[in-house]
Amino acid sequence: MELAKRRGFLWPSFELYGGSSGFYDFGPLGTLLKNKIVEKWREHFVRREGSLEIDSPTLTPEEVFRASGHLEHFVDLMSECGKCGQPFKISELVREKTGLDVEGRPAEEVEALLREKGISCPECGGRLGRVFEFNTMFRTTIGPGGGKVGYLRPETAQGIFVNFRRLWRLGRERLPLPVAQIGKGYRNEISPRQGMIRLREFTMAELEVFFDPRNPAHPSFGKVAGERLRLWRAGEEMRGEERMVEMTAGEAVERGAVCHQLMAYYLALTKRFLLDVGIPEERLRFREQTPGQRAHYSRETWDAEVRTERFGWIEVAGIAYRTDYDLSRHSQASGEDLSVLLQQERRKEVCHVVEPSFGIDRIFYCVLEAAHLQGGGKLRFRKELSPVEVCVFPLLRRDGLPEKAGEVLELLKGRGFWAEYDEAGSIGRRYARADEVGTPYCVTVDHRTLSDGTVTIRERETARQVRVPLPELPRVLSSLLRDELRFEEAGPLLQEEEKGKEEEEGEEG
Amino acid sequence: MELAKRRGFLWPSFELYGGSSGFYDFGPLGTLLKNKIVEKWREHFVRREGSLEIDSPTLTPEEVFRASGHLEHFVDLMSECGKCGQPFKISELVREKTGLDVEGRPAEEVEALLREKGISCPECGGRLGRVFEFNTMFRTTIGPGGGKVGYLRPETAQGIFVNFRRLWRLGRERLPLPVAQIGKGYRNEISPRQGMIRLREFTMAELEVFFDPRNPAHPSFGKVAGERLRLWRAGEEMRGEERMVEMTAGEAVERGAVCHQLMAYYLALTKRFLLDVGIPEERLRFREQTPGQRAHYSRETWDAEVRTERFGWIEVAGIAYRTDYDLSRHSQASGEDLSVLLQQERRKEVCHVVEPSFGIDRIFYCVLEAAHLQGGGKLRFRKELSPVEVCVFPLLRRDGLPEKAGEVLELLKGRGFWAEYDEAGSIGRRYARADEVGTPYCVTVDHRTLSDGTVTIRERETARQVRVPLPELPRVLSSLLRDELRFEEAGPLLQEEEKGKEEEEGEEG
Repeated sequence: MELAKRRGFLWPSFELYGGSSGFYDFGPLGTLLKNKIVEKWREHFVRREGSLEIDSPTLTPEEVFRASGHLEHFVDLMSECGKCGQPFKISELVREKTGLDVEGRPAEEVEALLREKGISCPECGGRLGRVFEFNTMFRTTIGPGGGKVGYLRPETAQGIFVNFRRLWRLGRERLPLPVAQIGKGYRNEISPRQGMIRLREFTMAELEVFFDPRNPAHPSFGKVAGERLRLWRAGEEMRGEERMVEMTAGEAVERGAVCHQLMAYYLALTKRFLLDVGIPEERLRFREQTPGQRAHYSRETWDAEVRTERFGWIEVAGIAYRTDYDLSRHSQASGEDLSVLLQQERRKEVCHVVEPSFGIDRIFYCVLEAAHLQGGGKLRFRKELSPVEVCVFPLLRRDGLPEKAGEVLELLKGRGFWAEYDEAGSIGRRYARADEVGTPYCVTVDHRTLSDGTVTIRERETARQVRVPLPELPRVLSSLLRDELRFEEAGPLLQEEEKGKEEEEGEEG
Repeated sequence: MELAKRRGFLWPSFELYGGSSGFYDFGPLGTLLKNKIVEKWREHFVRREGSLEIDSPTLTPEEVFRASGHLEHFVDLMSECGKCGQPFKISELVREKTGLDVEGRPAEEVEALLREKGISCPECGGRLGRVFEFNTMFRTTIGPGGGKVGYLRPETAQGIFVNFRRLWRLGRERLPLPVAQIGKGYRNEISPRQGMIRLREFTMAELEVFFDPRNPAHPSFGKVAGERLRLWRAGEEMRGEERMVEMTAGEAVERGAVCHQLMAYYLALTKRFLLDVGIPEERLRFREQTPGQRAHYSRETWDAEVRTERFGWIEVAGIAYRTDYDLSRHSQASGEDLSVLLQQERRKEVCHVVEPSFGIDRIFYCVLEAAHLQGGGKLRFRKELSPVEVCVFPLLRRDGLPEKAGEVLELLKGRGFWAEYDEAGSIGRRYARADEVGTPYCVTVDHRTLSDGTVTIRERETARQVRVPLPELPRVLSSLLRDELRFEEAGPLLQEEEKGKEEEEGEEG
C-alpha cells in the first residue's frame, strides 16, 4: 500500500480535511488500471456475450426501492456505545468476538446474544445500547422544498428491472437476455474500517440475465462445460460431505452442486474474467452463501472469493439466482404486467434472473496485491492490464535526443498507446521507475535513432533489448502487448556489450 | 427523439413509476455512443496531452463545499406559486417573460422586478410567493444517526483541488499541470423541463490546468495557433465593436480577445474535440459569459455553444479561468500551505487554474441531433463514433450460413469490434435497420463464403460492396473505420448484377 500510495494508484479521500472513512480516490495510475479492469469486464460480459448495456441514474426515487424491498430489507443491525457514542455494525462485532454469524437474525435475538456473551464497546468497554435496524441507503430529497424522497442506489440492478419491457423489445424478445450495467453503487456503512474492502461509494459491474424458468439452459454452455470450478458449499446443505469440492461446470450441473446450467455458465465466465485480469487460479474459489447470508431476493448465491494476504478471503463477485422476485415485485407495485409471451413455447411467463454482480474496487485491490506478490516488491501486471504500456526515454538530455523522443511519444499516443515520457536521472533509474509500476516495455531513443531511424525496445521481464525501425514500432508494440509476437522475433536482440555501452552513456543522465 | 427512443438510445428514467424529471437512461445504443464520446474526450484531453486523470468520490463531506464556496454560492433563485404550489426557477421565468438576464442578482431586486412586470404563475396565473435562494446541491448524511452532512458533488473539480499537493508531486513538480476527471455530477434543479439539456444527474469531463500566473503560456501553443475560433464577446466589454468576431487562436491572444495563451489553447482544443465527435463547424461558437453569468470563482469564462434545432444555442462546455480562487480557499480552510516552489523561477507561487469543463450528456444530444440531420431521417455518425461498427448477416437462414455468420461474428468480437448479428427478415430490411442507426459496414455471409472463404462488406454511405477473404476482414474493417483505407481499395468491387443476385436471394429472408 505504501507503493500504491507513493506511485499514485490510490489513497484515502479528503485527507486535506482529515479524511472521511469509506471513501478512496484513484490516482492517475489507479484510474488507468481501474478503467482497464472495467474494459476487460465489458469485453467478457458485454461485447463477447452480445449483452445489452444500459446506463441509468444513481439517484433513484423511493417508489423503486419500496417495490424492490430495499426500504425494508437493506438494513444492518447497529448499536451505539452508551458511553463513548461510537456506532457499531453488530454482525461484524459478534463475528470478531465469537465467530458466530448473526446476519439476517432479528434484532432482539442479537441483542440478547450481546448480553449473554458480555460483548461491550471494543473502544472504551462501555455498555452497548439497544440493537436496531439501520437502513444503509443514502437518502436525499429530489426537487426543492417538500420534494420527493430519493436514495442513492445500492445496486445498479433496479435500473435494469424497471426498464424490463423496453429491454425485452430491444433484445428482440429472445431468452436468455443478458443486460449489463456498470456504475457507482452506494452503501452507508455504519463504521467502515477495512480500507478499500468496505467502501461507502464503489463501482459495480452487474449483469441481469433474464431466462425462462422452465428452461435454465445457456446456448453456449458447451464452451465452458469443461472449466474447473472450486466450490465451497453452504454448511446447511451438507450431509457429511466435503464442503470444498472441485469439478467442472458440466459436472456441477449434473450433480446438482449448482442450481442450473445458467448459474454454472456464469460461474465459469466469472472465473475466466478474474484469471484474465491477473488473479491467480489457486487464490480463487466459489463459496455458496448460507440462507442467512443471502439477500432477501435470492434463492441461491455463489460468491467468487479471492484469498488476499491482507484481508484473507474476500468476496469480489456474487452470482445470485434472484428468481422472479424483482419482476414480480415491480409488477405488483406499478400495476404493469411484466410477464412476456414466449413465441415458440406459446405461453406467458415471468422471467427469472441470474445476476453476476462484481465489485470493481475489490477486484482492483486483488489485482494490485497479486501484481505486488508477483513482482517481488515491484508490480507485475498482466501486460494488457499495465496502467502504462510503454515508457519513452531519450538516452541523453542533449544532441536532439529529447526532441526525437518527444516525436516517438507523439507517434505512440496517436496510435492509442498509454505512453509516458521520462528524461529525469540516469537510464538505469528510469528503467527502475518504469519497472516498479509494471510498465512492460521501454523505448529508448539514442544516437543511432538519429542516423538510421531505429529505436531499442526493452522488455521488463527479461531486460532483453531489440532494435526496431520507428515506422514498425506501433505494430510491434501492439503485437507484443497482446502476446501475438515473441520478443526475440520483434527484431535483432542486442548483445550484452551493446546494452552495456548504452547504459554507460545513459548513466550520465 | 422518436427514433432515439425506439432504437434504444435514451428515454426518460423511471417511467414504470410515472417518471422523475431531470433523469434520463441511456439505452444499449446510447451507452455505446456515450462511452465512445467519453473515450474521444479522454483521447483529446488526457492521453494526447499527458494529463493525469483521477477518480474521486461523488459523495463529498460538507467541509469541502464550505471551503469551495458552493454552500454559499451554488444557489438558484426560486419562488413557489401561492395558489398551485408549483416551484419555479426565477431566472428562467424572467428570461422567458421579459428577455432579461437576472442571474447573479439579489433576491429582493428580482422579487421587485416580478411585481413590476406583473409576472405570475405560468401554470395557473396565481401570485408568486417570496423569491429566495435555494442551494441546488443534493444533501445527505454520511454514517448512521448524527452522521456528517455530505453533498453530491456539483462538479468533479473539487476532488482535484483537495488533492493538489499529491498531484503536484505525481506530476513531477512542473507547470502547466493538467489534471482530468470524468464522472457524475449532480444539481438539484428546481423544475427541469428541457429533457436531456437540464439534468439533475449528469456526466462531466473536466480538466483543471494548474499554471504559473506570471507565465500563462502553453508549450504546445504553436500546434493550435492557426485554429480559427468564432468568438461572441460579452456585451459589457464592448465599445461599439462587433460582438461576433472570427480569428485564429494566435490572434485572439495577440489582440487580447481572450485573457491569455492557456485559455486560447483550450478553446482550440475544445473546438477540435467537438468537431471530432461530429459537431458541424458552422454550428459551433464560443460565447463569453457576462460577469452576472459567471460562477463565483471565475474571472473569465467562455462557453462552447452548439446551435441545435430543438433548443437553439446550448452550452456544451465552459472554459473558465478560476484564478487561484480554489487553492487559496482550500488553503485557508484547511490550514495547509498549497503554494508551490517553482525551481527554475526560484519563487513560491499559488497556481492559477484554467478549467475546461464538458457536459457529456449535452454533447451526446448534439451528436445525436447532428447525426440525424446528416442522415436525413436516419442517423449518420462519424464512422468511429457509430455505436455498432459492423453488422453480420447470413444471406439465408439455412445451408449452414447462420452458423458461418456466427463464426464471423465471434471473430470480429474477439478482435475488439462492436459487432451485431441479424438474421431477421429480408437482406434489404436488415440493411435498412443497420442504416437507420448509422452502422457503417455490413458483412454478409453467402454461399461463396462456404466455398472460397470470402465475405462481402457493404459500405453504408454508397451501398457499394467488396469481397474480402475472411482472415483479412478484421484488418480491413479496422482500416476502413479509421479512414486509413479507401473502400474501393479494400477488395474487388461487386458489380450491380452480382449485388442484384445476392439481394434477390436474400429477399427470401
